[in-house]
Amino acid sequence: MQKHDQDYIRRKNRSTVFELIRKHSPLSRAEIARLTGMSPTTVSRIVSELYQQDFMHEIEQTTTGVGRKAVMLHVNPGSVLSVGVEIDRSGIRIGIVDLDGKVVHSTQVTRDSRETPEATLERIASAIEELIQAEDIDRRKVVGIGVGLPGIVDYAGGSVVLSAQLGWKQTDIAGELRRLTGFEVAVDNELKVRALAEHQYGSARGSSRSVLIGFGSGVGSSLIIDGEIYRGETNSAGEIGHTVVDPGGLLCECGKVGCLQTYIAEASLVEQANKIKPIGSLEELFQARKDGEYWAASIVDRAMTFVAVTVSNIACVYNPDTVILTGKLVESFPEVRDFISDKCMDQFVWEPLRGTFQIVYSALESDGVVIGSGILAQNLFLDIDRQMEQAD
Amino acid sequence: MQKHDQDYIRRKNRSTVFELIRKHSPLSRAEIARLTGMSPTTVSRIVSELYQQDFMHEIEQTTTGVGRKAVMLHVNPGSVLSVGVEIDRSGIRIGIVDLDGKVVHSTQVTRDSRETPEATLERIASAIEELIQAEDIDRRKVVGIGVGLPGIVDYAGGSVVLSAQLGWKQTDIAGELRRLTGFEVAVDNELKVRALAEHQYGSARGSSRSVLIGFGSGVGSSLIIDGEIYRGETNSAGEIGHTVVDPGGLLCECGKVGCLQTYIAEASLVEQANKIKPIGSLEELFQARKDGEYWAASIVDRAMTFVAVTVSNIACVYNPDTVILTGKLVESFPEVRDFISDKCMDQFVWEPLRGTFQIVYSALESDGVVIGSGILAQNLFLDIDRQMEQAD
Repeated sequence: MQKHDQDYIRRKNRSTVFELIRKHSPLSRAEIARLTGMSPTTVSRIVSELYQQDFMHEIEQTTTGVGRKAVMLHVNPGSVLSVGVEIDRSGIRIGIVDLDGKVVHSTQVTRDSRETPEATLERIASAIEELIQAEDIDRRKVVGIGVGLPGIVDYAGGSVVLSAQLGWKQTDIAGELRRLTGFEVAVDNELKVRALAEHQYGSARGSSRSVLIGFGSGVGSSLIIDGEIYRGETNSAGEIGHTVVDPGGLLCECGKVGCLQTYIAEASLVEQANKIKPIGSLEELFQARKDGEYWAASIVDRAMTFVAVTVSNIACVYNPDTVILTGKLVESFPEVRDFISDKCMDQFVWEPLRGTFQIVYSALESDGVVIGSGILAQNLFLDIDRQMEQAD
Repeated sequence: MQKHDQDYIRRKNRSTVFELIRKHSPLSRAEIARLTGMSPTTVSRIVSELYQQDFMHEIEQTTTGVGRKAVMLHVNPGSVLSVGVEIDRSGIRIGIVDLDGKVVHSTQVTRDSRETPEATLERIASAIEELIQAEDIDRRKVVGIGVGLPGIVDYAGGSVVLSAQLGWKQTDIAGELRRLTGFEVAVDNELKVRALAEHQYGSARGSSRSVLIGFGSGVGSSLIIDGEIYRGETNSAGEIGHTVVDPGGLLCECGKVGCLQTYIAEASLVEQANKIKPIGSLEELFQARKDGEYWAASIVDRAMTFVAVTVSNIACVYNPDTVILTGKLVESFPEVRDFISDKCMDQFVWEPLRGTFQIVYSALESDGVVIGSGILAQNLFLDIDRQMEQAD
């Protein structure tokens, strides 16, 4: 065997062991040998390398049933970090995310909704730099930056194709942010990274096929199959905001008739309300309904029906085990949650699919996109060998 | 290394080499060594074993650009066979499918639409037996039977949960047919196996993410990701017939309002036509439209709109590279095809997705389900080692 091949196998084995402990810890050396098929000697050598450089620690633990104590290995969550960034219309959230998906340090930056992408990215780069210095973070532990934002994202190219919410079009995010910070950068749609976070650390843990639906300024969804984001051909899978649910209905801003988001997106609901009365937000609309204004009930009740229809349609196309509902419309108003728990499964979901999935809400809440973006960066850029060299 | 482990590796390597040649032939021995990472000696030994037992042949071929002749290996398509069965309301198609996805022998059996599952399965078992004897097929080459049928199928359990078209409910197909024939049996929904066939040998060859939509007695779809059927939690992914596309619309037989199939399934269109005039089939309905009967135009034009809406919605949720349209409504009437080619992409598909996928029609046509069922059986039951022992 060539020296080159030996090196490759050695590096690959080291990553395999590290990933295994990371995802399934606590594990004993014997279990690692069994799961990987590696010899006990190889496993011991790799573990001791990782151990010496602070990537993991041991805990003596009584294994179930046998009573004999075993030495179990745990990854040190802080040994590798990433930066998760959420860009929204009027604000930016930045967090340092560890290997357990915890936000260990964070900061927020306001954003003028009309500022250019360049200005926003410069403010992000400065804020990351300040956070790293303020918290005295070892830069060598940071593997990269993940960015989550609303809109259509060219994931492979690291750029925004179109974000109506941010007013950005054909914007290179990864290249610019890499130039400004020196870190590797990955970019994705906010719902895709949020779904990843809920699957890995939130309310869809252990799910094989979960769909996150976001009812916010638009409507979208993201399917996670066996822990991986299902992206589709152009990273647009799950763009249900423009599925047609009423061909005789309202004209959508996209030029088609009857798109789901015309019945359900915040801006659309507020716009409809303004035909009757000046209304500035969903909160005001729901208050009007509470005050007995029947036009507000018409708008809200129709929206709730479409929320339930959306869950049902998602179940038919993706046949998931878990549906995660997120966004202001479903999270902030108890009347909507009540409607969903009372009627959604029993009246709206197609009979053969009733009970085949659970409906849950976000566990990570406002940290979801930051955590998901951090995971994205860890998944892409975590190179345990480079980290080990840098730790030397 | 234990003797047991050596055997396991030897068998695994043999399958690997066989599958590689099967899927990517022609291949040279050197290419196989490079692709598998096996040593040239191991590759040569395995190839000569497979070669001796008639699983493959060699062709001397000039490789492009170099001019030097190389010996390329091809699998003998007839060395392994499976039986593909399509069960429909009034007929059964049975085919012997080879490793190239070709139907090498076939037969058809009529079916009384009211006959019991037991009677149908007995007739299938007899017909398979007759076909094997009549064509003098070596039983040892037949790895198993695949069955495709309309309805909800418990794929893992090999049974039909509910087939409205066949009138079957909670019916064990695999167990019964295995008992009757002695062969291994796999069962799946007809659209899922048809999609598999079109992906592997038909109009979606080379696609990474294709969706087949069937507009027939119901409406359904099937997503193939990287050559594998996406099944979802209960093998119901793609059941778009009961997605709601008009919450103020017609009552569906499922008890919900506005399901897609109420606007588009053959039975539903014929039923609507009968409010005006006795109409027995789609053909008569389309003839009435041609004859200038405006009520027929109302029904058909609405159906065509919903066909286009379906394609658009499918593109939004699955973001495929290929959409395959099948079923009488889109295959038998040129006016529907014209409508799709004129309007579907430009008027109905959401603008960011235009041009991201191709719309194609079935290449395998009426053989699709038989071929797909045959492939399903080959994928599941092809055990090259057992085949080699039997060929000895």
